[in-house]
Amino acid sequence: MSTALLIQPADLSRLGRVSVVGGGGFIGLNLCQHLARSGVQVTAIDPNPLRPEAVQGLSIHHEPVLTTEAVQGSSVVFHVAGSTEPASSNVHLREDMAGTVGLTLDVLEAVKAAGVPQVVHVSSGGTVYGPNAPTPTPESAATDPVCAYGISKLAAEGHMQLAERMHGMRAFNLRVANPYGPWQDPRRGQGAVNAFLYRALRDEPIELWGDGEIIRDFLHVNDVVTAMCSVTLYEGDERVFNIGSGAGLSIARLINDIELLMKRPVKINRRPGRDVDVPCSVLDIELARRELAWRPMTGWHEGLEDAMVWMKQYVLTEAETT
Amino acid sequence: MSTALLIQPADLSRLGRVSVVGGGGFIGLNLCQHLARSGVQVTAIDPNPLRPEAVQGLSIHHEPVLTTEAVQGSSVVFHVAGSTEPASSNVHLREDMAGTVGLTLDVLEAVKAAGVPQVVHVSSGGTVYGPNAPTPTPESAATDPVCAYGISKLAAEGHMQLAERMHGMRAFNLRVANPYGPWQDPRRGQGAVNAFLYRALRDEPIELWGDGEIIRDFLHVNDVVTAMCSVTLYEGDERVFNIGSGAGLSIARLINDIELLMKRPVKINRRPGRDVDVPCSVLDIELARRELAWRPMTGWHEGLEDAMVWMKQYVLTEAETT
Repeated sequence: MSTALLIQPADLSRLGRVSVVGGGGFIGLNLCQHLARSGVQVTAIDPNPLRPEAVQGLSIHHEPVLTTEAVQGSSVVFHVAGSTEPASSNVHLREDMAGTVGLTLDVLEAVKAAGVPQVVHVSSGGTVYGPNAPTPTPESAATDPVCAYGISKLAAEGHMQLAERMHGMRAFNLRVANPYGPWQDPRRGQGAVNAFLYRALRDEPIELWGDGEIIRDFLHVNDVVTAMCSVTLYEGDERVFNIGSGAGLSIARLINDIELLMKRPVKINRRPGRDVDVPCSVLDIELARRELAWRPMTGWHEGLEDAMVWMKQYVLTEAETT
Repeated sequence: MSTALLIQPADLSRLGRVSVVGGGGFIGLNLCQHLARSGVQVTAIDPNPLRPEAVQGLSIHHEPVLTTEAVQGSSVVFHVAGSTEPASSNVHLREDMAGTVGLTLDVLEAVKAAGVPQVVHVSSGGTVYGPNAPTPTPESAATDPVCAYGISKLAAEGHMQLAERMHGMRAFNLRVANPYGPWQDPRRGQGAVNAFLYRALRDEPIELWGDGEIIRDFLHVNDVVTAMCSVTLYEGDERVFNIGSGAGLSIARLINDIELLMKRPVKINRRPGRDVDVPCSVLDIELARRELAWRPMTGWHEGLEDAMVWMKQYVLTEAETT
């Protein structure tokens, strides 16, 4: 299985060797693929095995345990690990704290012990700002998370900055909007695009919380990956970057566009709105455009179709293995 | 032993029964004393026994363990517990997270289970804002903690707000400046006023980190206690309040005023500045003035003298028991 939409390999070979903590997850697999295709030696650190169909033909070393040795010799450690989800974080407060903040402390300890000069952490653009933030939301807006996941992500960001102050490694926080695309497990409850595509393809009803007027900032994972690579080239003083699509889209519009793509209506299961959902979340990405010379390159319809192509293969594979 | 400076007992008897988590600590003992003198039934929850000289003649019930039963029937739970300090938090990152965030989750679970309608948490005005915050700092300023204690306090604040959203109890965060006064253990490393008074009275050198030009917002603990009581009367929508003296004072000025009070010079041990110290921390307290009709009532010289009177007794008592 391969993805329809490939990122052009950039000259990342100067990175030599890198480690990706959480390399077996959604963003992790996409990042490992791109880095390996760009000639970088990649160690994917993940307790779970890497999906064979994602790493086929690529030279990616897998380490099940995060240790100093596992990151030794890396020019960058990418930290994209996380075991919790925004929607469920409010019922598992302690697990969310341990899984997010505790894990970040583990990463920073390994980075420090191994003398790795740079660490890039994927934070949450959708949950660290509050419901009263201006739209689009700049990095300077007040943080006011309304779910435990956002509270923990903000604390993890703080520990990243503290580690740089105390130990000198360059520590970046990328506040990523709502990523979607290949390798995002549609059954984990995070990511409306993939979850809806999955349901629609299986002809199951989409769970719609609220009236569909909620606005989100959907970003194809390829654009997240290029942002993470761009930051490794950055020599300026900024340390926190919003990474989003630059535009908002309603949940109703997402469903509509899925119907257009499938050329048939989808079933919808309407549910009451949830407190955990901020009404509107769109990131201001001017800082990343200016400082990182990065911008999202994947158009919405193109990205949605790519996710659909991958999802069809995913659903088919799943059917075979069931 | 009794304090020289007494708060006028306010009509707090309508509170009926309250619980103070951390009731054996610095702010906790002062709060318990004031509440008990005001006719409130107080349960002090603290793993350590209450200092007999602090609770002598007062009807304060002591519970060593925080349980639902311990807070049952309370109109308010005050959460002033904390086992960590800003200065040491950066070397004990995990302990700080558990001691601050984990403990707040314990408090909120008990509050929820017991159906207590209000919880008041003492947060840290000196560490949640960052080094680039405007002076004086309003509650709306960006939070950007530079020590683990501030990171954890901010996460604890977030969980307070989340608990109100999810479970409906009124949850207040008071961002208290640099409190000083009776029952602040001068050997715990937190609180320059008490630590310096202790050293000066024992004729030991004061540890001065940096050049003395660091500005702090010193607030007598009686003013913290009256703010905590005022918030129990509050019916408006604000949930986060700065509680400070309204003015900044340099460390050099503090030392000078101690020398004036003692009528002799004190010994100083000069040390290099610490990263954990924000250069200037002064809170804007207009919101609390307006919304809570509260203001600091203790003048600086009066408060410093009160702390000195208490400290003399403390040092004497310590000498007797050594």
